[in-house]
Amino acid sequence: MSTHSTTAAPGSPAAPSTLITGIGSLVTNDTAHGTGPLGLLTDAAVVIDAGTVVWVGPAGAAPAADERFDAGGRALLPGFVDSHAHLVFAGDRTAEFNARMSGQAYSAGGIRTTVAATRAATDAELDANLARFVREALHQGTTTVECKSGYGLTVKDEARALRIAAGHTPETTYLGAHVVAPEFADDPAGYVDLVTGEMLDACAPFARWVDVFCENGAFDGDQARAVLTAGVARGLTPRVHANQLSYGPGVQLAVELGAASADHCTHLTDEDVAALAGSATVATLLPGAEFSTRAAYPDARRLLAAGATVALSTDCNPGSSFTSSMAFCIAVAVREMGMTPDEAVHAATAGGARALRRPDVGLIAPGARADLLLLDAPSHVHLAYRPGVPLTAAVWRAGVREL
Amino acid sequence: MSTHSTTAAPGSPAAPSTLITGIGSLVTNDTAHGTGPLGLLTDAAVVIDAGTVVWVGPAGAAPAADERFDAGGRALLPGFVDSHAHLVFAGDRTAEFNARMSGQAYSAGGIRTTVAATRAATDAELDANLARFVREALHQGTTTVECKSGYGLTVKDEARALRIAAGHTPETTYLGAHVVAPEFADDPAGYVDLVTGEMLDACAPFARWVDVFCENGAFDGDQARAVLTAGVARGLTPRVHANQLSYGPGVQLAVELGAASADHCTHLTDEDVAALAGSATVATLLPGAEFSTRAAYPDARRLLAAGATVALSTDCNPGSSFTSSMAFCIAVAVREMGMTPDEAVHAATAGGARALRRPDVGLIAPGARADLLLLDAPSHVHLAYRPGVPLTAAVWRAGVREL
Ligand SMILES: [Zn+2]
Ligand SMILES: [Zn+2]
Repeated sequence: MSTHSTTAAPGSPAAPSTLITGIGSLVTNDTAHGTGPLGLLTDAAVVIDAGTVVWVGPAGAAPAADERFDAGGRALLPGFVDSHAHLVFAGDRTAEFNARMSGQAYSAGGIRTTVAATRAATDAELDANLARFVREALHQGTTTVECKSGYGLTVKDEARALRIAAGHTPETTYLGAHVVAPEFADDPAGYVDLVTGEMLDACAPFARWVDVFCENGAFDGDQARAVLTAGVARGLTPRVHANQLSYGPGVQLAVELGAASADHCTHLTDEDVAALAGSATVATLLPGAEFSTRAAYPDARRLLAAGATVALSTDCNPGSSFTSSMAFCIAVAVREMGMTPDEAVHAATAGGARALRRPDVGLIAPGARADLLLLDAPSHVHLAYRPGVPLTAAVWRAGVREL
Repeated sequence: MSTHSTTAAPGSPAAPSTLITGIGSLVTNDTAHGTGPLGLLTDAAVVIDAGTVVWVGPAGAAPAADERFDAGGRALLPGFVDSHAHLVFAGDRTAEFNARMSGQAYSAGGIRTTVAATRAATDAELDANLARFVREALHQGTTTVECKSGYGLTVKDEARALRIAAGHTPETTYLGAHVVAPEFADDPAGYVDLVTGEMLDACAPFARWVDVFCENGAFDGDQARAVLTAGVARGLTPRVHANQLSYGPGVQLAVELGAASADHCTHLTDEDVAALAGSATVATLLPGAEFSTRAAYPDARRLLAAGATVALSTDCNPGSSFTSSMAFCIAVAVREMGMTPDEAVHAATAGGARALRRPDVGLIAPGARADLLLLDAPSHVHLAYRPGVPLTAAVWRAGVREL
């Protein structure tokens, strides 16, 4: 193990540098300097300054800093990167969930229920809801969260959702093509024209990504291609809701268009797996959705064995996966999807960062953003070993101690 | 709905009465006064005084109290009753868990690993570990927790475990018959003699319950009967680890001896189900164990359909189920065991109380202990709807605000 450092970004008197010592186990995801795919270090220390990690190395060789934080033998890892969430909405769907899990008939409005509530909400209400979810996720160790539109489905409401989201995260995704808007039920082609035209124009200034739900009942392969290529032409980078409920063209389309991620990946042919493995498109798995709909889980082992990069995310939304807990997703991925604890923790940190093409998060190395999660446990394995138990001891986001 | 009240226990100036208003949804488990099996009330208020619930009724008819607490539209329910936990131990078994979930060979010492670490620990270490787990559970809404011995397996170490446990909970369980002590590997009959003789004498003063792990590789039906009847003769009430890993005599024995609970109940014949349904013995299901060992889950639906009383508990222990989260158990029971959210919440509160024969906990009604969990959610359904998300907004234990 070698020590390695970088020049600190300009500091300010209000942001002292901090030396973190007493780390029981350090997940760096920096394989050049630590052990195994998680880049594990023991007896290590970390220095953060001006929002950035500036030094990682043996505790005995640590440089001085303005302040010192004793981790007390606990595990330190990169903050979680939740690369798939739907957090601009109003209302919830408790009755629908309760009926589904109780085996009762229920005339569920599905996504349309949330669309109606979201359209009816004020900007302030949507902003407050989103702030609450971002904070809730942060308290559970999530320091980067992606946020999609998709519950507005009008030019005004989609643009509003993205403008509000952009106030909370740079990872904003235009998902006007979530479902066909109710007003276009008889004219899906007209809705695709809107999504690729006027709605895109209104949304692109607030979005980094363009997404589409490619699925029977939502958008077919040709429609999805039209949505994504229009977004790319406006400077957005594609990601795709692909192969969640059935086999389909979503994964192949994602790979063909160089999407950062194909999300869900529950129903994959051998060709789909090979395409992912041979590309830079990440397979983002969302076990919360299968958990909360009693569906079969995606096979992470198959993807990993083929060489694909896997990310884990929450899919947090009020319909099919109302969890914001990345730790829960890790535990379920280990229980149900053939992932080892190490692989699941990697997928929830480095994997999410790859799915968002963010070299600055999901790792603890000089130059990385100082996004750190201190667990109330001696090892990252406890995220799977202690399912459901809140294990957050401390969180830093961009160097600021949030908890 | 009628209002109903009781005379408050003698108060003190230091313990003011509190009126809780603004409750969005109230789970009382008092079917005489609320709706359905959960005794649900809306627009209700609760008054607690001197550690006891003294009034429950419509918010508009609430009596005055010294203080007022606004629940802000959130759900209030009885604190969780975790009727099965193994919390007096030292060390953990991270490496064993990691190897099991990673498909690696590992010469697991199993329970013996924890026995060795527990024997080697000081009283103060065991007491601090236990206090930490009780506090961790309390922060997740558990206001009553049972605690077993079973990692000492000598007269001195079992008595020590129960003496320490008795400092934290009245629900102490003598489980000298967890496995045959290593020193008696060649003389299991000699170990049963010890458990039913000298060890029982040393432990009984600190224990309310007697338990045995009735299973292939642990204790057979005759041995289990000897352990339980000896305990009963010393004034302890039986409960049984029954039918976890295979079919066996445990459940029938539990019912025959009038045990308060048969725990695990994963492998049940129709006769076992009928015996439970026709008795006061609760079927306590422990989904954390199946989750963390990738085993098949017990069939709660079958037990409920037959008319058995079902409890949910954590089985918190470092080997097979290292969760202290009753909310997690509820979510998994709904996903995997055929329980509705209502049934799972009932099992985690009233069910646990029944399994511990405690009429004073697991409900919110005049005369009950003021053990209350305020959720950061409008409904108890969110415990299943939002898996893994910490939803504790406030906790009162015996009227004392703990969080
Ligand atoms: Zn989604
Ligand atoms: Zn047990």
